[in-house]
Amino acid sequence: MTDADADTLNRAMMQRDRASAWLGLVVERDDPGHAVVSMVVREEMTNGFGITHGGLVFALADTAFAISCNEDDRVTVAAGADITFLKSTHAGQTLTATAVRRTRSGRTGLYDVSVVDEDGDAVAEFRGRSISTNRTF
Amino acid sequence: MTDADADTLNRAMMQRDRASAWLGLVVERDDPGHAVVSMVVREEMTNGFGITHGGLVFALADTAFAISCNEDDRVTVAAGADITFLKSTHAGQTLTATAVRRTRSGRTGLYDVSVVDEDGDAVAEFRGRSISTNRTF
Amino acid sequence: MTDADADTLNRAMMQRDRASAWLGLVVERDDPGHAVVSMVVREEMTNGFGITHGGLVFALADTAFAISCNEDDRVTVAAGADITFLKSTHAGQTLTATAVRRTRSGRTGLYDVSVVDEDGDAVAEFRGRSISTNRTF
Amino acid sequence: MTDADADTLNRAMMQRDRASAWLGLVVERDDPGHAVVSMVVREEMTNGFGITHGGLVFALADTAFAISCNEDDRVTVAAGADITFLKSTHAGQTLTATAVRRTRSGRTGLYDVSVVDEDGDAVAEFRGRSISTNRTF
Repeated sequence: MTDADADTLNRAMMQRDRASAWLGLVVERDDPGHAVVSMVVREEMTNGFGITHGGLVFALADTAFAISCNEDDRVTVAAGADITFLKSTHAGQTLTATAVRRTRSGRTGLYDVSVVDEDGDAVAEFRGRSISTNRTF
Repeated sequence: MTDADADTLNRAMMQRDRASAWLGLVVERDDPGHAVVSMVVREEMTNGFGITHGGLVFALADTAFAISCNEDDRVTVAAGADITFLKSTHAGQTLTATAVRRTRSGRTGLYDVSVVDEDGDAVAEFRGRSISTNRTF
Repeated sequence: MTDADADTLNRAMMQRDRASAWLGLVVERDDPGHAVVSMVVREEMTNGFGITHGGLVFALADTAFAISCNEDDRVTVAAGADITFLKSTHAGQTLTATAVRRTRSGRTGLYDVSVVDEDGDAVAEFRGRSISTNRTF
Repeated sequence: MTDADADTLNRAMMQRDRASAWLGLVVERDDPGHAVVSMVVREEMTNGFGITHGGLVFALADTAFAISCNEDDRVTVAAGADITFLKSTHAGQTLTATAVRRTRSGRTGLYDVSVVDEDGDAVAEFRGRSISTNRTF
């Protein structure tokens, strides 16, 4: 499968992704092993401390991970992930998640996602563990 | 501070939590070191594979973690977390996250959150790392 | 396979385990999904700060994990693990690692290992991710 | 403090590190935020499956992490770490761990360590979480 094919499959996957639309996620880059996704923090995304809910920072990173790890026509899903929160953000800020493949072998892969704010400050570091299924797109 | 006080502070925190309201989270139990939160998966919470977006499963677990780790009048936040995804779920299902303190010492704590579906099947296992700030509620 | 069979296989595995012997690990309990292993910290196990090398605390926990996750005649190995260090220890102390299965489904499992010192104080919390191979003992 | 100073402190730390000597670790590079450490796998480092004990692969990575995260005169220790095991290795092989700072802010830091064998094949990926204490060297 060519990169262009993977790209097409990823676009189809994202078009059906209702959660990403609901969260207002914008796919800035979508290549096998490399994806960039951004999100504007809305008021309804803040928690009881008035800062962006960690779960939604995770959701942004997880989406960049999902795009980057679906590198061929097999459906690849998240087996798990670890996130470290580095800086609080607020409504109105723009967060950008950049996912890069770290390693991929057989059915499993490891992808690192850095989330930064509009000043480039580190907001979170995420490492996703992927597993490819036997299903195809 | 008594448990009742912590309970009151947690309720105030959750009342200000716009993300939890937006996600439709329901706090079933709210004790220091022990919280239960549920969520009905809505269509807009599903990803491109038609299953619940992992980021929203994380958001549910993270909220139960946030409630359980705010055990006194210091603001306690997530330093990070690890999640393992065990089973896919779909729109219409009810997910329940139960958070339990594993250890807490000084300013840091570790909390385990199990997410199950309405049949009690394991959906995800989450371990959160908390850090208490110098700020108070 | 019965628990007694798994027990026999685990004993054979541990008899061939040269690293565990080298580290002086003692298997206190060896049941499917539940293992207890102890280690006396020796001078040569301390790092440049004079405390037990984190890698050797991990090795202790990892061994308890390996025993507990080999629950049947398939060879099960560690896919990965996360450890949180809670308290420093010194030469002469006895550390005990207790591993308990958290979840197991299909080929993957999750096992929690708590490491305590001789006073029962928490030294480390470890969560191991297992994967069963197609090989048998 | 200059890099040369940090280098001197790290050397002193490693000279006192009995575990590293015991494991036969060789520090190939020792710069703030960047360290390389190698280890020849010995027979006594193998487990019951005849492969390198995961705990000793962790110990190698953890040592590279410890060197790279002690970037100034404050004693910096491991708060925790996550490791993913990618490939089995055997006695006689040489493993090399390369640690690189990912992020550091205030008292906490995140360091990525890649462990490869003599063919450059990925053996493990490790991410360490550091915390600086108030003690100085």
